[in-house]
Amino acid sequence: MATSPETEHPLKAFGWAAKDTSGILFPFKFSRRVTGEHDVQLKILFCGVCHSDLHMAKNELGFTQYPMVPGHEIVGIVTEVGSKVKKFKVGDKVGVGCLVGSCRQCNMCDRDLENYCAKQILTYSMPYYDGTITYGGYSDIIVADEHFVVRWPDNLPLDIGAPLLCAGITTYSPLKHFGLDKPGVKLGIVGLGGLGHLAVKFAKAFGCTVTVISTSVGKKKEALENLGVDEFLVSHDQEKMQAAAGTLDGIIDTVSATHSLFPLVSLLKPEGQLILVGLPQNLEVPIFPLLIGRRAIIGSAIGGLKETQDMIDFAAKHGILPEVEMIPMDYVNTAMQRLLKSDVKYRFVIDIANSLKRE
Amino acid sequence: MATSPETEHPLKAFGWAAKDTSGILFPFKFSRRVTGEHDVQLKILFCGVCHSDLHMAKNELGFTQYPMVPGHEIVGIVTEVGSKVKKFKVGDKVGVGCLVGSCRQCNMCDRDLENYCAKQILTYSMPYYDGTITYGGYSDIIVADEHFVVRWPDNLPLDIGAPLLCAGITTYSPLKHFGLDKPGVKLGIVGLGGLGHLAVKFAKAFGCTVTVISTSVGKKKEALENLGVDEFLVSHDQEKMQAAAGTLDGIIDTVSATHSLFPLVSLLKPEGQLILVGLPQNLEVPIFPLLIGRRAIIGSAIGGLKETQDMIDFAAKHGILPEVEMIPMDYVNTAMQRLLKSDVKYRFVIDIANSLKRE
Repeated sequence: MATSPETEHPLKAFGWAAKDTSGILFPFKFSRRVTGEHDVQLKILFCGVCHSDLHMAKNELGFTQYPMVPGHEIVGIVTEVGSKVKKFKVGDKVGVGCLVGSCRQCNMCDRDLENYCAKQILTYSMPYYDGTITYGGYSDIIVADEHFVVRWPDNLPLDIGAPLLCAGITTYSPLKHFGLDKPGVKLGIVGLGGLGHLAVKFAKAFGCTVTVISTSVGKKKEALENLGVDEFLVSHDQEKMQAAAGTLDGIIDTVSATHSLFPLVSLLKPEGQLILVGLPQNLEVPIFPLLIGRRAIIGSAIGGLKETQDMIDFAAKHGILPEVEMIPMDYVNTAMQRLLKSDVKYRFVIDIANSLKRE
Repeated sequence: MATSPETEHPLKAFGWAAKDTSGILFPFKFSRRVTGEHDVQLKILFCGVCHSDLHMAKNELGFTQYPMVPGHEIVGIVTEVGSKVKKFKVGDKVGVGCLVGSCRQCNMCDRDLENYCAKQILTYSMPYYDGTITYGGYSDIIVADEHFVVRWPDNLPLDIGAPLLCAGITTYSPLKHFGLDKPGVKLGIVGLGGLGHLAVKFAKAFGCTVTVISTSVGKKKEALENLGVDEFLVSHDQEKMQAAAGTLDGIIDTVSATHSLFPLVSLLKPEGQLILVGLPQNLEVPIFPLLIGRRAIIGSAIGGLKETQDMIDFAAKHGILPEVEMIPMDYVNTAMQRLLKSDVKYRFVIDIANSLKRE
């Protein structure tokens, strides 16, 4: 039985937590462990608001442990390091993403794919090695094993860069892994939200020709003019969808709402790949278009730590920055409501250091 | 508008055809084209009964053209060759599978993947180049372009070998293409019917460790004792399915009935592949197990002509033979009924030459 950090850990912490499936967040006093030999303690400056935070706050995946402090797009400054820490020193700018632990010895961990380790430990709402439950970044401090901490390049802004740690790696990883990171690749991106707009930016930096597929014609102008998207398809425009059939090498589908995969798979060339990175429910397998073109539907979840560092460094080098709306901590419940309606361009980031005050 | 072979073609032919969505087959007089420059004419000896024949006879895929003569596991003897035919001569033993045409110039055709050419022509119920409709192998003769005819090895029986031309290549192709053709591979095969039993035989010949997953515990003894299957899982035995979670490199799913993909994807290792070769409807995408392991659901349909020849040669060399029940032509409607109930071990083959008499 997992014990609560409130009773087990000595380090006082403060954040906002969901208490039940309403998902509404409240100020919450808790504690963190002391900085272990391999640990880094950091003062959190900024934390992005991911759609998963909302899923988890409402226990929509079924394994939430309340009280639950969300947040896995965490950037901050190192305030203490353990005696065996090698990569970091006090004062360093760092990030913590979706993972804070994994077995470190399985085939996946050996290949730097901690994100596919069966014993991975998520940054919030999962049992840690010591039996306590992990708490995320909607809080003032965090303690993490240095293996799960990434260096933050000097030229990458701490504030607006935060969403790279989940939305960024979630889209960068499949583009790299599935060979969709090359000039000449014709790529589709479904949904133009927090994940989708970063997928566009990475894909354009790789030299891909990018088609955005969206339910909302209202996003067309901005997609083409501001994000540099090459083509914009409205998913219910059957004529244009039909005309584009069989033209794409791959698709990154970022949508978490229920939607039909048939028209998307039909956009793929033979042997094309539809890569799902969202968490929609009740999707039907488009059998016939899969079979007649040896097409694939593949899931992809965040990335390993090495790849996350590569992605952060690539973003810094190429000036890839999320578009964000900065919010104070006490706006978070309103932000969640707006997120549900896709009313954000394109990611909320909480200004933790300037708006979260211990009570 | 497609015209009917009955009026367009001079060569008299006779077979059995479905006339409507009842799918019931009746004796049917029709005609074939004369043997063209690149064509081979053959006297049909045997034809396998594929589940697709039943789907198509009932127009379950929506593009059947009646009257429809099914049959795409055709073996016979060459009786005439066109002036430019290079591969065959009169008297040769040959096979014709699911395809009789493709564009021959697209990227897929260039790669010997005529089976994924957008302009492929199926052996029955599709418009041929001359506008007539193709008629399949439940008939006494057929004329086909030599590119779509395979050589039949001397040591491969003509009668029981027929199902290799669809059931064989449908399972051989994904095993080869997706790297599941090596010793050490842990392979799952879902369903132990016409396709499944051949998947087992090829996989064992490749040196794989084979687990059959079936709804029917009644097939266990035969699977283990006669087919050499290594493990047998009953899909509703949750305890054993749970124990086997994360153990398979790939799965060939041959089932055409609606079934849940969640337990199957859960059997896969991270990055494992669930390959669908049947045509089930209303399957739900198991999003979460796909995402947390970068797992894939992939469709695969038959194989190209080069690969079909390779498969036939491999089967002859390794003694891989379908298990069949030989039937006379006038038993076909009963056979279709039994096929619907999976009451066949494991494939019906029609003894065309000895039981189909022109009326």
